[in-house]
Amino acid sequence: MSKEFFTVTPIEQVFGLMADFAPVGTESIALQEACERILAEDIISGINIPGFARATMDGYAVRAASTFGASEASPAYLSVSGRIEMGATPCSKIGHGQAVRIATGGMLPEGADAVVMMEHASELDETSLEVYKSVAPGGNIVAENEDFSKGSKVLSAGTPIRPQEMGLLAAVGKSRVTVFKKPVTGIISTGDELVDIDHEPSPGKIRDVNTYSLSGRAAKAGAHPVAYGIIPDDYGRLLETCKHALGQADMILISGGSSVGTRDLTLDVIAALPESEILVHGIPVRPGKPTILAKAAGKAIWGLPGQIASAMVVFDRIVAPFIGHIAGNALFSERNYKIPAILTRNISSVQGRTEFVRTRIIKEKSSYYAEPVPGPAGLIRTMVEADGLIEIDINTEGLEKGERVEVIILR
Amino acid sequence: MSKEFFTVTPIEQVFGLMADFAPVGTESIALQEACERILAEDIISGINIPGFARATMDGYAVRAASTFGASEASPAYLSVSGRIEMGATPCSKIGHGQAVRIATGGMLPEGADAVVMMEHASELDETSLEVYKSVAPGGNIVAENEDFSKGSKVLSAGTPIRPQEMGLLAAVGKSRVTVFKKPVTGIISTGDELVDIDHEPSPGKIRDVNTYSLSGRAAKAGAHPVAYGIIPDDYGRLLETCKHALGQADMILISGGSSVGTRDLTLDVIAALPESEILVHGIPVRPGKPTILAKAAGKAIWGLPGQIASAMVVFDRIVAPFIGHIAGNALFSERNYKIPAILTRNISSVQGRTEFVRTRIIKEKSSYYAEPVPGPAGLIRTMVEADGLIEIDINTEGLEKGERVEVIILR
Repeated sequence: MSKEFFTVTPIEQVFGLMADFAPVGTESIALQEACERILAEDIISGINIPGFARATMDGYAVRAASTFGASEASPAYLSVSGRIEMGATPCSKIGHGQAVRIATGGMLPEGADAVVMMEHASELDETSLEVYKSVAPGGNIVAENEDFSKGSKVLSAGTPIRPQEMGLLAAVGKSRVTVFKKPVTGIISTGDELVDIDHEPSPGKIRDVNTYSLSGRAAKAGAHPVAYGIIPDDYGRLLETCKHALGQADMILISGGSSVGTRDLTLDVIAALPESEILVHGIPVRPGKPTILAKAAGKAIWGLPGQIASAMVVFDRIVAPFIGHIAGNALFSERNYKIPAILTRNISSVQGRTEFVRTRIIKEKSSYYAEPVPGPAGLIRTMVEADGLIEIDINTEGLEKGERVEVIILR
Repeated sequence: MSKEFFTVTPIEQVFGLMADFAPVGTESIALQEACERILAEDIISGINIPGFARATMDGYAVRAASTFGASEASPAYLSVSGRIEMGATPCSKIGHGQAVRIATGGMLPEGADAVVMMEHASELDETSLEVYKSVAPGGNIVAENEDFSKGSKVLSAGTPIRPQEMGLLAAVGKSRVTVFKKPVTGIISTGDELVDIDHEPSPGKIRDVNTYSLSGRAAKAGAHPVAYGIIPDDYGRLLETCKHALGQADMILISGGSSVGTRDLTLDVIAALPESEILVHGIPVRPGKPTILAKAAGKAIWGLPGQIASAMVVFDRIVAPFIGHIAGNALFSERNYKIPAILTRNISSVQGRTEFVRTRIIKEKSSYYAEPVPGPAGLIRTMVEADGLIEIDINTEGLEKGERVEVIILR
């Protein structure tokens, strides 16, 4: 039971170390598969979009000047002929005093620069149109490059692909896109107390929860989790598994070893890996202080606490942004919105460490309330009951009931 | 160009119609695959969890009463022997005045009811322990059923499975779980103006964006999208495709037909489907007024506007909660948090319809600002630049710069 007092690395410094780890490689995939992936190329539009001036309303394509001054009291009279449907190419051009019927989305004929809405005109006979309201040039149309101009950059590498970006990639004709690979994340659960979930645990044993909860969190963070199963607290076995995982994965997560003796085991194993270096050994956060970050063969090895809630919290707050970085996601933190809420009771915390408090979110009328979920970090219930986390700053000594807090959602 | 003025169905009534559509069936899957699926069975724990009283700290298992009154000035003296590691079954029980070394996570021996933290004691020799601080019964341990009791319901059908629920399912030994099937959602893009994304559009034509953006949104809403491609504005072809899709899918999305003529085509096709009924024909929302909801052979058929942003907004605000319902998700709306933000400029809107305004979110210091993205609903750029939507109530006439609004995030 030695080495109890180790030197902790401030959380900002841990984030600073990320830059030492290179993003994973890229791959080309079909657009249909691209949702939630991270774009790895800049996208330049090869065409104007929509490519032609389009009506945004059902009505009449006109030269706007033909309608100037028109009103209910003094309509403008235009000659009307033909009809332009969506998808068709207009066969004639129009001049002053002329109009063509046009459907929403239809292509404006040459000479037209606006659309009179159907409601603002009526056909007197097959060829005569009365217009009750003037329209300005550009009215009720989109210009041929109003969405995107040919040659312009429409998306940057590093952008996460949401459904709307999929739509844009379709619009520019990218049926295949280059994206960052999902970082393959090896997940190792250590501990003599763990049994496989198919077994009924005997006294002193518990089922392996972390493999499942961490695989889920890793997938949500954009990684591809690969589970290496349960490894007992045995130097040889753990070293062998880590070496094996290091050959396959882009990074490794070892959970377990919260007690001082087993933490030493994890450290010894890491030290025995090729080109290894312990970068972080303890972070001033709670839960999660005994977290380890090491580098071996250029890859990150994270040692997470074995306590269920500790492992998930450290993963979400520290490892997930790291995965965001090596997965090439340029907007990871920007899109990580927090929900303002009112705290329902006092929470104590200790200065000198960042505290992450599991909390429910309760909506009442138009306000959110944050209700802390008490309980030790070994209880999974505290995570299941929690909707999110409140971060208490390293310099803050507790929060008071009624204070406004920001809740990090645990999706 | 008839039927311009159709009767609209208030948005709450549209949601009310959902109850007429039954949830999809269920299936049994491996726990590894269960993240983001919806649980379709109640889960009862077959065991106490953790199953035995556990130490939450490295230290000494004791009978708490042996330490009562202990202080720095007047320590308690206990006899100490052995060591309990995680995963081991203690071989002896302890009595008053006795202690056993114990690791975090270790099983308390019979007779012990608390753990003295390592920092609050020191070993004088191999068998003598000095304790500087008393511990209460239950101190630094979790009870054998503190997480979950045998026989208790730990999760309810209808719960979305997050990583923490995966962990809990692992803890109770559910290596396979019964979940709701993902509703198979047939996606049909209609319009003579559409070309496949692999083709350069000729004048008057545009690439098919909606198949991609709606497939992405459908997948995010928990559905399994199946694209049926581009169908021209042709009664026979559209009817044939809808019948085909109706035989395979749990619901159908038809996008296109924003103009009055093509909307009539969609209505005619729906009317020709077996056991069909138009339930909604127009919703007082903007964008998205011409939305159709019909039922055919017990399945939902949605007609969405062809305009890119309109289709996505209606999908996110109206169709996605519907998918949540038929996918069995009991917490869909509850977990749909909105971000409070300050509006950066005035927005006009018209009373009598609900307006969804595309908006950027800008973080400055600790506040979020909502900056509306202007532009017609035919521009995909407006969706790509938007982080979310502001909903303007049907009874509200515009919002003013500086007002507090709630932003719905478009993930």
